[in-house]
This record gives sequence, C-alpha cells and structure tokens, in this order.
Amino acid sequence: MSRQWTNPLRDPRDKRLPRIAGPSSLVIFGVTGDLSRKKLMPAIYDLAHRGLLPAGFSLVGFARREWEHQDFGEMVHDAVAEHARTTFRESVWNRLAEGIRFVPGTFDDDDSFDRLAQAVRELGEERGTGGNTAFYLSIPPWAFPVVTKQLARCGLADSDADTWRRVVIEKPFGHDLASAKELNNVVNDVFPEESVFRIDHYLGKETVQNILALRFANQLFEPIWNANHVDHVQITMAEDIGLGGRAGYYDGIGAARDVIQNHLLQLLAFTAMEEPLSFEPNALRAEKVKVLAATKALQPFDQTTARGQYAGGWQGGTKVPGLLQEDGFAKDSTTETYAAVTLEVQNRRWAGVPFYLRTGKRLGRRVTEIAVVFKRAPHLPFDSSSTEELGQNALVIRVQPDEGVTLRFGSKVPGTTMEVRDVTMDFGYGHAFTESSPEAYERLILDVLLGEPSLFPVNDEVELSWRILDPVLEHWAEHGAPESYQPGSWGPPSAEDLLARSGRHWRRP
Amino acid sequence: MSRQWTNPLRDPRDKRLPRIAGPSSLVIFGVTGDLSRKKLMPAIYDLAHRGLLPAGFSLVGFARREWEHQDFGEMVHDAVAEHARTTFRESVWNRLAEGIRFVPGTFDDDDSFDRLAQAVRELGEERGTGGNTAFYLSIPPWAFPVVTKQLARCGLADSDADTWRRVVIEKPFGHDLASAKELNNVVNDVFPEESVFRIDHYLGKETVQNILALRFANQLFEPIWNANHVDHVQITMAEDIGLGGRAGYYDGIGAARDVIQNHLLQLLAFTAMEEPLSFEPNALRAEKVKVLAATKALQPFDQTTARGQYAGGWQGGTKVPGLLQEDGFAKDSTTETYAAVTLEVQNRRWAGVPFYLRTGKRLGRRVTEIAVVFKRAPHLPFDSSSTEELGQNALVIRVQPDEGVTLRFGSKVPGTTMEVRDVTMDFGYGHAFTESSPEAYERLILDVLLGEPSLFPVNDEVELSWRILDPVLEHWAEHGAPESYQPGSWGPPSAEDLLARSGRHWRRP
Repeated sequence: MSRQWTNPLRDPRDKRLPRIAGPSSLVIFGVTGDLSRKKLMPAIYDLAHRGLLPAGFSLVGFARREWEHQDFGEMVHDAVAEHARTTFRESVWNRLAEGIRFVPGTFDDDDSFDRLAQAVRELGEERGTGGNTAFYLSIPPWAFPVVTKQLARCGLADSDADTWRRVVIEKPFGHDLASAKELNNVVNDVFPEESVFRIDHYLGKETVQNILALRFANQLFEPIWNANHVDHVQITMAEDIGLGGRAGYYDGIGAARDVIQNHLLQLLAFTAMEEPLSFEPNALRAEKVKVLAATKALQPFDQTTARGQYAGGWQGGTKVPGLLQEDGFAKDSTTETYAAVTLEVQNRRWAGVPFYLRTGKRLGRRVTEIAVVFKRAPHLPFDSSSTEELGQNALVIRVQPDEGVTLRFGSKVPGTTMEVRDVTMDFGYGHAFTESSPEAYERLILDVLLGEPSLFPVNDEVELSWRILDPVLEHWAEHGAPESYQPGSWGPPSAEDLLARSGRHWRRP
Repeated sequence: MSRQWTNPLRDPRDKRLPRIAGPSSLVIFGVTGDLSRKKLMPAIYDLAHRGLLPAGFSLVGFARREWEHQDFGEMVHDAVAEHARTTFRESVWNRLAEGIRFVPGTFDDDDSFDRLAQAVRELGEERGTGGNTAFYLSIPPWAFPVVTKQLARCGLADSDADTWRRVVIEKPFGHDLASAKELNNVVNDVFPEESVFRIDHYLGKETVQNILALRFANQLFEPIWNANHVDHVQITMAEDIGLGGRAGYYDGIGAARDVIQNHLLQLLAFTAMEEPLSFEPNALRAEKVKVLAATKALQPFDQTTARGQYAGGWQGGTKVPGLLQEDGFAKDSTTETYAAVTLEVQNRRWAGVPFYLRTGKRLGRRVTEIAVVFKRAPHLPFDSSSTEELGQNALVIRVQPDEGVTLRFGSKVPGTTMEVRDVTMDFGYGHAFTESSPEAYERLILDVLLGEPSLFPVNDEVELSWRILDPVLEHWAEHGAPESYQPGSWGPPSAEDLLARSGRHWRRP
C-alpha cells in the first residue's frame, strides 16, 4: 500500500504545489442530506475552482428520487451557489456540470446498483475516469451492510492494478467497542482497510494539521512538551447551540460518543504523540495508534468524569428549551449533552499529566481549543506578593473559530516594582497568511481522490478510542444520570469539581 | 548595606505599591546641560506628579550663572513644560517650585561649595530633608576629581546613621580599564561604593527589567535558555541619526566605548546570567558580575569584529554628511560609528554560543533589541522542500521603540501540503497594560532617592566590561581603520561577513 500511495510532498515537480487528483468519479449515497448539500457539494466546486480536480471528474448522485441528471445538477448548482467558499464562476460550473450524473434507486434494489455500475462504466469510457471511483456513504450506519454488499455484488468494490475503488464513511463509527468492531467487519468484508476512508472532519482543519508543524518544525516547543514541564492539558470543544431537530441522531448517543470518542481523542493523539518517522500515512498512524493504546481513562470515574444535560432558560437574551423539551427527545432521556473525562497517557513522556477532555452543547461560546498548561517555574525568585496575579504559562492552539495560537506568560507590570502579571501573545492564522484556509471537506475529499490516507483514522484507532471510553460509558450507564446545567454556562458544577480537586480550573475560552 | 537598603517589594504595606522616597534633596551639577533639561528635570516633575517625591523634596541647581533662585525656577519650569511625560498641573508645579534653589559658583571655588553646604543645611531645617542629599554629576569626567574633593572638603560627602549622601554619575566611565579604575578610585576616595549610583539609563527601561521577569517568572523559556537549544544571540542598538554637534564627546571615543561597553554588555548580562538568589541588589549584582567575568571577546578579531564609519550620502530622501564632514571631527578621524563584536560566555550554560553585539549611527532604523535565536530542530520529519522557507525560531525582546516581545516560529501554510513557513506572535507592552511606562530617568532618580541600587552597575561591572572590550580596542588601534558604510544601511560589508562565516546573518529589525 505504501507503494501505491503517492505523497504529494514527494511529487518530483515543485513539492509545495498541491497535487491534482487523477481521473476519477465520486459517488454520493444520501446525496439529498444536509451534509451533502452544505459541505460535500460546495467542497467539490471549490476544488474545481482551485483547479485541483481532474479534467474528466464526475459526480454521481444516488437517491430514491425520480430525477433526471439535470434535476440533480440543479440541486448541486443551488447548493454550490449558496455554500461554496470560493466565488461562483460560470466557466468552472459548466465544466463541473458536464460530469454530473444521477442514478435513481433504493439500497435493496439490485437493478438500481446495476444501473450505478453501468453509469460508472460509461463514465470510464466517456470521460476517461478509468473506473476509479470513491463511494461516499452519507447514510446511517444501519444501511452500511446492504450498500457495501450491493457494491460488492455488482463488482464496484473491486480494486485492481489499473482501477481503484474507495469507500468514505462518516461517524458514528459504532456506539461502543463491540459495535465498532462489527461495523469495521462489515466494511472490511467488502473493502480492504487501505480503501476505507473514515472522515473525521476535524482532521481536515488547518489548525489541527498545524499541531504537527508547530511541534516538529520548531525547536521551541518540543523540549518542554513533556511531563517535566507540562502540568496538564485541556482539550475543549464547546458549542453554544442546542440539539433541536437532532434527536434522531443524538438521543441515546450523547456528548462523549458524539465528540470525545472521535474528534477530541484525535486531537489528543496529535498533541501527545511521539515524532513520527515521517508524515507518510503509515508512519503517522503508527504513532497515533501507539499513543491511543497508551491512553486510559483515570479512575475513580465519579471523581474524574462529569456529565450534564442542559436545562431550559435564558441564553444571551433568548429563552431556550432544555434537552427534555426539545422535539423528539424522550421526556426522561438521560442522554448527556456535556461530558468531561480525565485521561492519562501512560508512557514516559506523559505519565502523571492529566489530559482533561470536555465537550458540550449550549455552553457559553462556540470554541474548540487545545490548551497545554505548563507547571509553575520550580522556583520564583520574586517576593510572593509580586506574583499573586501570575498564572501558569500556557500554549493554546485555537482550532476554531479565530484559528491560531496563543501563548500566555508572565510579564513585568510597568512601574517601579517587580510585579508580574499574565499577558498573552497571539498568532492569528487569518492575519499571517494571504492564502485562505481550505475547508476541511475540500482537503479531505481531495485526499480521498488522491488516495492520501494520512488524515483518516484507521479501524485500530477507532477501536482503541472506544476501548478508552467504554469503561466511562459503562460507569455512567450504571450510576445516576447527568446533572442539569444552565444554558450559556460552562457545564454542570461537577465539572468544576473535577478540576478543583487538584487545585486546577478550566479555562474560560 | 543590605540592612540600610529597603526593598520596595518588602514594604510591609501592599508591596505592589511603589514606595515614596524619604525626605531628601537632589543637587545637580551641570544643570544647564541638555541631559538636565530634557531628562532630569522632566523626570523630577513626573515623579512629583505621580506623588512619589516626599513633601519637602528640594532641587538644587549649581552652575556658573548669576542667577537667583527664581531664574533657575523659570528654567526648570520651561524644561518641564516642554519635556515632561505627564500633564503639566499648576498645583504640582507650585509644590515642586517651593523647594527649588540655586547656588551660583564654579568647581574650583571653595566659597561656592561652602554656599552649597549652607544651602543643604538650610533645606534640612526649612524643609525637613534632614540633610539627605544626592549629588548628580552631569558634568564631564575631568571635573569629577575637583567636584568630589570639594564635596568632601565641606562635609557634603559624609553619610552617617541619620543622614545619607549619594553621588550619581553618567557614562563614560573611563575609556579603557586603566582609566576606569582611576575614575573609580577618584569617586570611591570620597564616596563609599554603596553611595555611588552609576546611571546606565537602559537599565531603567521597563523592557530591560522585563528580561528578568520573562526568564524567571515563567516555565516556558528557561528550559531552552542554554547552549543545548540556543544557536546564538544578537544584541542590537541601532540609531538612524548621525553625530552632528557631538564631536566633543564622540571623536576618539567611538561606538564600542559609547554603547557596547555599557548598554549592550548590561543587556548581555541580563540575558545570560544565572537565576539570582533574589532580586535584592547584592544578589542581582553577584550574578551580573559572575556572567561578565565569564565573558570574553572571541578571537581572531579580524574575523570576529567589524567597525565602520558612516559616509555621506542620501538617507531617506535627505542628503546627510559623512562623519568626516561633521563639524568638529578631525578630517582623518578613525573613530568608528559602527561596531560589532563576537563574545562568548564561557560557562556551562553558554559555551559555544556566540553573542553578537552591534551598534551604529546612521543605520536603517532606530531600534534596540535582543534576539535569542534557537537552533533548528535536531531533526525535521518533513520533506526538505516543505521547510525551505523555515528559518530558526527566535525570541526577540524589543527594548525600544515599540516595546514588547516577538516570538518567531514555523507554522503550516494553509493548503493541501505540509509546507512550513515562519510566522510571528507578538506581545506589545503598550497594548497589554493600561499602566503607562515611566521614563527610565524617573525610575532611576527615584531609585537613587530610595537608595535602591539594583539597576546601577557597580565598579566591578564597569571594570569587567572594559576587560572584555580592551583587547578589541587595542587590536583596532593597531590594525587599519574603520570601513566606510552608506547612511541608512546596516553597517559595513565586514559586519555581514562576520556572521556569514558561520552561515548566520544579522536580523533586519
């Protein structure tokens, strides 16, 4: 596989130019869904606009609609016009539109898939895709077995030396270790692991990839990136919105499964992993797998974890319902909308350093960040009153919004005494570069077409992440229910206690 | 002495409040000079405005003028109105003006000094200064012996348990080690070393004192502040103006004696010293003396030093004369207006790390900064073309103007490849604090009145600094002449060669 994969950085031409994907098609199942309209189609247009799609690139929609090609084309057009990052240009659109096809059908209907196979063959001839096809399953997990089996039945899952076939899947990757293994088995029965691209759109974000650049391109940070100097790490993904309209997906799942298992544990892996041999996918995954395998949820869980469920109330001048009042949620739902856990990476670099991961809905602000909080200096040759307002040094990687890096440190307060107070210095991605950041889905769809798997978690990573989280989920299932918290707050009181026990406190980002 | 000195941070009241000086007078010799009018008098007013002078504070001018007290008062008034940092307020001025006295006289006239002694006695009685007096010698060094002897003769140099007497002197502290020792002997013959306050106004700058806060209040920097991680250090004081009108002081002295011997070596000491036991003056000086004693100029000097003299030409749209055309300079003057040296601090922390110090007139920009340049990471797991635009990490302490700290590091360039490029993050003193920074002379005059000697170099430091510089000066005296450089440039070509020999280059600040 490492033979087959071609690292864009190793392109014999200027290695800093992004590679253009080779001839290929993208087939989307669930093409009428929100994700498809708001993210996938705009990203495809943006890639076309940036000249990164091959000349004969084709987009095939599959759905239970009585549509002609042009009906689907109109839908794509509208989605692009509304949501694309780059300017809408007729010339770009017209070229893209030539390769748009629609196959009406249902998942259990053999004829539908035979027609799909026929369409893929025709595109190979008409547009020179050579049959190279990625299948994007933007569908619920229950539909995975039937769709993958259909693809296998009509020969659409078979790669060979000349033709590749890849499958793209979105979370949830199961709801615990057992179900994740089952799901991986279903997919791997049909597609070999190197053809499976699991999307964690966080990994497509520039700021997440920049963690690796920050750590390994610099001399400044890595020498202090360990238990000798780091006191603890806080990884936060906070949202200010609630779960209105998402009960079908969310009820019974909750914040830990929805966010910690995938996004936050991937951020932890990037933050804590050892330097990879290179940024080739296998080397990178080897380090991620290694660090996830060393990660454990710290016990006892009634002291090291917290969960909450948002109550109704006022949030920024608006009256908002509690989770139990949201449409579609069971009136006695114990689904948590806030989750915090304490993890430890049990290796030489990190032993004894707590990694606090938290996520929640209806919190004070929408923000995702990684804060590496350093120990106090081992000795302060200052009078103690001079350092009363001095906190701990921290390096904060701002994943979203306002992407960038903040460094917090102590500086002398102007004046005739040696008073020291916290100040910050900032690096803002938006200000530093004229290049605008591509959307995560642009990067990830391009990587699928390029067969560049670095940013996609493998089955091992998914299973290891469940192995970390399962004991917490089991404890929660057996003990009590989530604590209620006010909308616009930063979670339930037990979350504060979690850190306060060791004299620490959560950042207010 | 450490008994007598009262650290403001150890004040039993709120230690973060600046202390108010006790009853005292300040006598200025050379009161009609530029320094006095532009810096000292405004600083005294600003201290009064900030409420930091004692109620009976008195200012005594001594000069060869037929002036009454009120003539001198008018001169102070005009100097304050023009140059003070804080708003001019009549009430503050009126209170200050009550304590203004003038003693007409010459340095070699015993009667003049007897009148001065009488004035000091009277102030003690009238205004309650208790005879506590600081003598500010804003006069050329040749006048030091006669003035200090006069002060001794009429009993003005004698401290006792109830009354302190201090002397304040400005650079130049000699022009080589031998003359510095001689000068120290002259002063120390009359005033014990703990009563001598040598002004290096750079040490009064907030940004210089902040070096200690940055290094020792934080955990981030000190672990990498050594030869394992630092590649080299650049200390720069650049001025864009020439030497018009300053021939009397500058010709035959030159840039190395004028700036490197004092300001830049003091900056080096703050940057390179070990953590002091505390910030009490003796503890701080002990570390400065230790690090200066370990510092040597690296040989061979024809490769490790550079000197230049600015030529005439165009600078920013203005035609400016070369040094040899400036009024008062010898037409064959070999005085250097640019000097660069390579030093090494020969101890465990810094062995092998070059400290490059440079200063010059008529350079591209007025700027003083300390740049700690870090080694490249020992290994870069990136493709080499991805890091082509990656420089070395650097922490830059911006001493003036635009006071603050800049951190330069590599960050991922937005896009689909792992290209890394240098970016910076900034901390600006002016933006971070509502407190405005006092002028260096405010801080230093207050410290003289408080008897707080931390920021004043002792005789040992002065002599050690000459010991470092003397071999370079001797080499220069025996070999050739300064190289000419264009106004507005960054010095002579040999300065570039100095760093280029080891593959390094000067920052363009």
